[in-house]
Amino acid sequence: MLSTRHLLGIKDLTEADIQLIFQTADEFKEVLNRPIKKVPSLRDVTIANVFFENSTRTRLSFELAEKRLSADVVNFSSSSSSVKKGETLLDTVNNILAMKVDLIVMRHSSPGAPHYLSSRIPASVVNAGDGTHEHPTQALLDAFSIREKLGDVAGKKVAIIGDILHSRVALSNIFCLKKLGAEVMVCGPSTLIPRYIRELGVIVSHDVRQALQWCDVANVLRIQLERLQVKYFPSLREYSLYYGINKAMLNELDKPIVLMHPGPINRGVELSSDAADSSEHSIILNQVENGVATRMAVLYLLAAQQ
Amino acid sequence: MLSTRHLLGIKDLTEADIQLIFQTADEFKEVLNRPIKKVPSLRDVTIANVFFENSTRTRLSFELAEKRLSADVVNFSSSSSSVKKGETLLDTVNNILAMKVDLIVMRHSSPGAPHYLSSRIPASVVNAGDGTHEHPTQALLDAFSIREKLGDVAGKKVAIIGDILHSRVALSNIFCLKKLGAEVMVCGPSTLIPRYIRELGVIVSHDVRQALQWCDVANVLRIQLERLQVKYFPSLREYSLYYGINKAMLNELDKPIVLMHPGPINRGVELSSDAADSSEHSIILNQVENGVATRMAVLYLLAAQQ
Amino acid sequence: MLSTRHLLGIKDLTEADIQLIFQTADEFKEVLNRPIKKVPSLRDVTIANVFFENSTRTRLSFELAEKRLSADVVNFSSSSSSVKKGETLLDTVNNILAMKVDLIVMRHSSPGAPHYLSSRIPASVVNAGDGTHEHPTQALLDAFSIREKLGDVAGKKVAIIGDILHSRVALSNIFCLKKLGAEVMVCGPSTLIPRYIRELGVIVSHDVRQALQWCDVANVLRIQLERLQVKYFPSLREYSLYYGINKAMLNELDKPIVLMHPGPINRGVELSSDAADSSEHSIILNQVENGVATRMAVLYLLAAQQ
Repeated sequence: MLSTRHLLGIKDLTEADIQLIFQTADEFKEVLNRPIKKVPSLRDVTIANVFFENSTRTRLSFELAEKRLSADVVNFSSSSSSVKKGETLLDTVNNILAMKVDLIVMRHSSPGAPHYLSSRIPASVVNAGDGTHEHPTQALLDAFSIREKLGDVAGKKVAIIGDILHSRVALSNIFCLKKLGAEVMVCGPSTLIPRYIRELGVIVSHDVRQALQWCDVANVLRIQLERLQVKYFPSLREYSLYYGINKAMLNELDKPIVLMHPGPINRGVELSSDAADSSEHSIILNQVENGVATRMAVLYLLAAQQ
Repeated sequence: MLSTRHLLGIKDLTEADIQLIFQTADEFKEVLNRPIKKVPSLRDVTIANVFFENSTRTRLSFELAEKRLSADVVNFSSSSSSVKKGETLLDTVNNILAMKVDLIVMRHSSPGAPHYLSSRIPASVVNAGDGTHEHPTQALLDAFSIREKLGDVAGKKVAIIGDILHSRVALSNIFCLKKLGAEVMVCGPSTLIPRYIRELGVIVSHDVRQALQWCDVANVLRIQLERLQVKYFPSLREYSLYYGINKAMLNELDKPIVLMHPGPINRGVELSSDAADSSEHSIILNQVENGVATRMAVLYLLAAQQ
Repeated sequence: MLSTRHLLGIKDLTEADIQLIFQTADEFKEVLNRPIKKVPSLRDVTIANVFFENSTRTRLSFELAEKRLSADVVNFSSSSSSVKKGETLLDTVNNILAMKVDLIVMRHSSPGAPHYLSSRIPASVVNAGDGTHEHPTQALLDAFSIREKLGDVAGKKVAIIGDILHSRVALSNIFCLKKLGAEVMVCGPSTLIPRYIRELGVIVSHDVRQALQWCDVANVLRIQLERLQVKYFPSLREYSLYYGINKAMLNELDKPIVLMHPGPINRGVELSSDAADSSEHSIILNQVENGVATRMAVLYLLAAQQ
C-alpha cells in the first residue's frame, strides 16, 4: 500500500512508495509486451482526466494507461467548459465527482491546485503537472527508465540540463532521484537556475561539458522557446551554442552516458538530431513507453486504497 | 412505454411519461450506488452526442449515462466540423445516422432545432437544450430531486428565481412542475420576466424574500453575466444586491427550505457560498448525481421503443 | 492478404487488393445490418487517429469502424498538441507508437506526409487524406458504392465533376476507377482541371450537360467556397450557373444516372436540393454508410498483416 491517498508530488512519497510503484510498473510493463495488453484491474472504476492546460502527450499516456486497466474514462478540458463561465475549480471537480467518478487526474497551470483539491474532495487526485511546481509521474517514469537501463538508481550520477527555473520536471526529478540515493547535478545558465536549488542538495554547474563528463545519465530538459527571447540572456542562439548537446560531444567522452529527454524535443536547440536518435545513448522512446506502465502502476495502487 | 419517440420538451410528455421516467431512474440510481455501476441494457446501441453549443457539464452527464448503459458513444461538436463548411443541420445529422447511429442527443442554439430534426429522421432525438426554449432532462432531474428530497412533487410550492426570460431551464421546469401538480412561482426583476409567463399558470413575484417565504423549494437559476451589463437594468451589482441569496436569509425563515441550482454557480452573485454549500438546505450536488440516473432512464426508455 | 503494409494511396494497390477490400467490406456491411453490429476482430489492437487537419466526417467514420471492430481507439488532433510546440511529425508519431499503438490513421495537410512516415515507423499507416494528393478510403467507398448499385465497376462510365485541381478525392477516384476497368471523364472549368490529368487516361470535358449525357455515374465534388472568390474565374455565381446540377437536368436525360457526392454538400452550389435528395438518382447516404464498412475492411486487412 502507498503511504498516501493521492499522488500530488514526489515530495510526499517515501522511498518505499516509489519502490512499490516500480515493482508494480514492472508487472504492467510485462503485460504491455504481451499480445493482449489489457487487464481487468480497474473494471468498474471511472477516471476523469481534467486538463486545465493543454497536454496531448501526458493526456494520451494517462488515457492509454486507464484503458489498458479497463477503467471507464471521461475527458474534461477547460477549453470547452463551464470553467469559462466563471465556475470555481472546486465546484467543477465536485460536479464531476457527483457523477460517480472515482479518481481525478488533473493538470493545472497553478502550482498547488491539486493539493488544494485533494484536501476538499473524497476522491484520489493524481497531479499531472501543476504550473512550475511538480510533475510526479514524469519523475517516476524517468527514474524507472534509469533503473531499467542501469539496474539501479542508487549511487548513479544524474545531470539535469536546461531551464531548471521554470521546470516542474526538474523539481520532481530532483526529489525522486535524491530519495532513491542518486547524486544530482543541475546544469544551465545562471539566469535559469533558481538560488534555492542548492538547498535541495544538488550540485550546480554552468558548463555542459563538465556536466556530461561528470554524469552517468544526462536528462536534457525541453527549452520553452518563449522563455528565450532576444531581450533575455541567453537568447535561443546563445542557448543552443553554449548548452546544446550533439552526438560528437557524447562520443568524445571516455565513458558510457545515457541520454534522456521528457519531450517534445526542440531538435537543433537543446539536442541535435544525431544525439536524440543515437541508439547507443538515447532512451527517449523508452521513457515514453515506460510512461504508460508507470501511470498504470500509480492508478492501480491509488484505486486499491479507495 | 413512453407516449413519444423523442424527448424534445416537457411540453410533449404526459404525467404518466414523467412518472415512468422517475420509476426507471429510481432503479438506475440504485445501480449507480453499487460497486458495479454498469448495466448491459444498451449494448449494441450507438448514441451520437451532437453538440452545436459548448456544454461540458451536460455533455459529460449524458456521456456517463450512455457508458453506464454500455452504449457505444461518439461525440460530434460543431467547433471542429463540417458545419463550419456550410453543411445544413439535416445533412449533418443524416450523415451521422447513415453511419448506423441509433439515437441522437442534441444541443443547439436555435429554439426548435431538435423538433425540426425529429420529424425528418428515423432515429429518436433527445433535446439537450435548444436556445432559450427547453432543456427537458434538466427539468426531469430537478423534479426527480425534489421528489427524492420531499417524497412527492404534487402539492409542493416551488419558486424559480432569476433570469426567467432567457432561461430554457425555467420554461422546462414550469411545464414539468405543473404537470406533476406543484404550485410554481417565478421571481426576478420585471425586465427578466416575460409577459406571457402568467399564461402558464404561475405566480409572479419581484421580491426574493417573499418568494423564499412562500416556497418549499427555491430553484435559483444561473445569471448569465453577459446579460447584466451596465447599460441594462439590473446591473450585476444591482442583481446580487436585490436577488442574491445567502444563508442568513434562509436561516431567518421559520420553516425548512430546499435550495437548488442547475449550475454552474456564480458564487457571490445569485448565491453566496454559505448558501450553496449549506448541507441543511442545498441539494445542488444531488441534482448532478440524479442527472446521470435520469438521463439513463430517458435513453433506456427511448431505445426500448425503437 | 493485401500486397502492401500501408494504405497510402490507391496508386499502390493492385486490382486484387481492391477486390479483396470489397469482398471483406461486403461481409462487414452484413454485420452492420444485424442488430449486433460489433465484431471482436481487432480486440487488443490499438489504433490512433492522428488528425493534423480537421475532419469530423472522416474521423467519425474511422472511429465508428474501429469501435465496431472492438479496437481500442485514441484520438490525437494537432490543435491541442505538442505539434504546436514545434515537435516534428516523426517525433510525434514515434511517441504515440512508443505507447504501444499498433496502427496509425493519419490526415495531414501536406501531400506525402503519410508516405514519409510509413518508411520510418514499424506500424501500418492509413492515409485519411494528405493535402491535395490522395484520399484512398474515399475512393474505395465510392467504387464500392458504384459496384453495389450497378453490380460492377468495370465497363461503367464515371464522370467526376467539379474542382479537379484541388481535389484529393478526384485523384484517388481516377486511380481506383481506372484499375477496376471503368471509363473516367473529368468535367469542370478549365481553370480547375490540371494539365497533367489527361496523362492518367481520362476524358476531359468542360460541359456538364455533355458529361451527364455520357456517364452512368456522376460523382459531383464539393466546391471549396474559398477557391471561388470574385477575383477568380469562375466565381461562385458563375460556377453554380454553369456547373451546378439540378433534378430537371437529370430528368431530361433519356437514361438512368447515379448521383454521388463525397460531402459535405453545398446545397444550391454544385448540387440543388432536389437533385441531392432524389431517391431515384442519389446514393449519397449509401456512400456514407459504405464508408464505415470499407474502412472496417481496410483496418482489418492491415491488422492481419502485422
